[in-house]
Amino acid sequence: MSLPETMRALVQLHDGYSGTAEGPAIDTLEPYLEFREVPVPQVGKGQALIKVHLAAVNPSDLHFIKGEYGQPRVKDRPAGFEAVGEVVAGDTPFVGQRVSFFAAHSGCWADYALTDAAGLVPCRPDLAEADAAGQLVNPLTAMAMFDIAREGDVKSFILNAAGSQLGKLLIGLGRDHDCAPIAVVRRTEQADALKELGAAEVLVTSDDDFMDKAKGIMRAMKPRVLLDAVGDQHTADLFFAMPNRARWVNYGKLSTEPPKLSQMGQLIFQHKRIEGFWLTRWMQEVDQATIGKTIAAVQERFVSSAWTTDVAAVVPLGEAMDKLPAATKIQDGKVFIKP
Amino acid sequence: MSLPETMRALVQLHDGYSGTAEGPAIDTLEPYLEFREVPVPQVGKGQALIKVHLAAVNPSDLHFIKGEYGQPRVKDRPAGFEAVGEVVAGDTPFVGQRVSFFAAHSGCWADYALTDAAGLVPCRPDLAEADAAGQLVNPLTAMAMFDIAREGDVKSFILNAAGSQLGKLLIGLGRDHDCAPIAVVRRTEQADALKELGAAEVLVTSDDDFMDKAKGIMRAMKPRVLLDAVGDQHTADLFFAMPNRARWVNYGKLSTEPPKLSQMGQLIFQHKRIEGFWLTRWMQEVDQATIGKTIAAVQERFVSSAWTTDVAAVVPLGEAMDKLPAATKIQDGKVFIKP
Repeated sequence: MSLPETMRALVQLHDGYSGTAEGPAIDTLEPYLEFREVPVPQVGKGQALIKVHLAAVNPSDLHFIKGEYGQPRVKDRPAGFEAVGEVVAGDTPFVGQRVSFFAAHSGCWADYALTDAAGLVPCRPDLAEADAAGQLVNPLTAMAMFDIAREGDVKSFILNAAGSQLGKLLIGLGRDHDCAPIAVVRRTEQADALKELGAAEVLVTSDDDFMDKAKGIMRAMKPRVLLDAVGDQHTADLFFAMPNRARWVNYGKLSTEPPKLSQMGQLIFQHKRIEGFWLTRWMQEVDQATIGKTIAAVQERFVSSAWTTDVAAVVPLGEAMDKLPAATKIQDGKVFIKP
Repeated sequence: MSLPETMRALVQLHDGYSGTAEGPAIDTLEPYLEFREVPVPQVGKGQALIKVHLAAVNPSDLHFIKGEYGQPRVKDRPAGFEAVGEVVAGDTPFVGQRVSFFAAHSGCWADYALTDAAGLVPCRPDLAEADAAGQLVNPLTAMAMFDIAREGDVKSFILNAAGSQLGKLLIGLGRDHDCAPIAVVRRTEQADALKELGAAEVLVTSDDDFMDKAKGIMRAMKPRVLLDAVGDQHTADLFFAMPNRARWVNYGKLSTEPPKLSQMGQLIFQHKRIEGFWLTRWMQEVDQATIGKTIAAVQERFVSSAWTTDVAAVVPLGEAMDKLPAATKIQDGKVFIKP
């Protein structure tokens, strides 16, 4: 297959970290990215070049382009962590096949992306394109965190930002594995759809009786783990209303508010703790067999409709500078970029 | 030995928890305790009655009488957790011997205290009375937390309230075991004495360049654990200036300020976590052999002068209502009550 010399890409304008902590909201891409014609990446030893079919837009991408993620930006390199596409070159038996991948070396918001050959994830033929484009970041995070939530055979867990794609995946796992999801959302309108999906309870932070209701539910259901993508004061208040040995597991920061620890004595006397979850670290810590088994389970869940991907928007690569910011503000669905 | 029918005691005026979070400072005992003549406790099965020689006054006692500790108050029962005395009755071979103890059933701010016979700690004859009166709460906490601080062969740790008796015990352990103590205090005047004692660095929170200096020390010494008895914003700021995988281990709440988590992303990307330490839980979790070995090491450290008890005041039981509040405000030393 003959490759072009150049490609279209959304290229980063900055190196390193910004030092800000604004969260993933974006109103414009201009400060961070530029749509540009750049050389197609050269494939090095142990690498694979993938022609991108469909790329995911995750909160981590938005944190990253703003310089607020756990790894530094690289100026003039395309952004975009996760996609599905066809392997077109590289030191791998998967050339010609459809794979999902993390773009380890050159980002996937581009016609072509470069990654490690060892990290390619072949897709079942019956896996839909949108499911395949987002089968790593959210689904693996959901699987790994759900295992934390049900440790010790606990029968319920709390999650906030429950209307997000990741939230819905977690609710599906709880529903299917007898570990009742207690969903926390900002807007009453989200409640019915999440109950339909399998949430045992839905708490709405804007309700006047939010904390009273939360306390009653905690007493009845005794969740042990709070999976938190928000990190605001509501989250802290929920944590302090949880029973003994509660774990506040933060994996995102949708809020810019720094929560206050109003009842630190609970860390001492109730054995509670506050920690973080990062998929990148999880993947470094578990063995390859576990990752392989988890990915197979992820694909099976999508193909069997135990999970579905709610698509909010598919933005053409060439129009992303204009249209992506508005698309990221669509509630309760996932955004993709299509080269 | 014939026992009197009544005894003098500082008796609690309230049941349960207060719901407040004021911290251990007390200006007066009247809202919480009354000096009163009460019956000498009856010894039940598996219990021991001890004639109190000298009782410790720990921050946990002050939290407790205010209704802010991890266990509920019992109205009309004497306060006081820890003391040394002579066993005068009970189902134990230690009758007639000097023991240290936690007063599990009737508090030790009294002429007699009642506890479980299984929890008596015989004292070496060469152990000084003040060391014996305070050999459990602070020394066992110091030993257990120091083991956390040096996990993984880490070569330094941070502690605040470093001028407290517990702080000094921790500094001594770090000095003697090649794990450099970074001491945090509020007042410049405390620095020299703590360096003398073995602190590798002393950070003074009231200094203008406190955080700059702290950051430099973190980079150079790479402590992994912050042992925290304060729980204020300085503590949170120190935690967020620590290197990857830092643990904030809170064991007390001298400050009433609720710290803000300004950089939650560090929990995710830097694998940091916030937790508590409670001696009561530690004693439930470790085996008896570990506790026995630890207590032997504690007594050896006091007898060999590796540790010393700085006595701020010894308040007679009959004068405690008047004199104890002022005594607890004396800096950098330990207060005792003498029946």
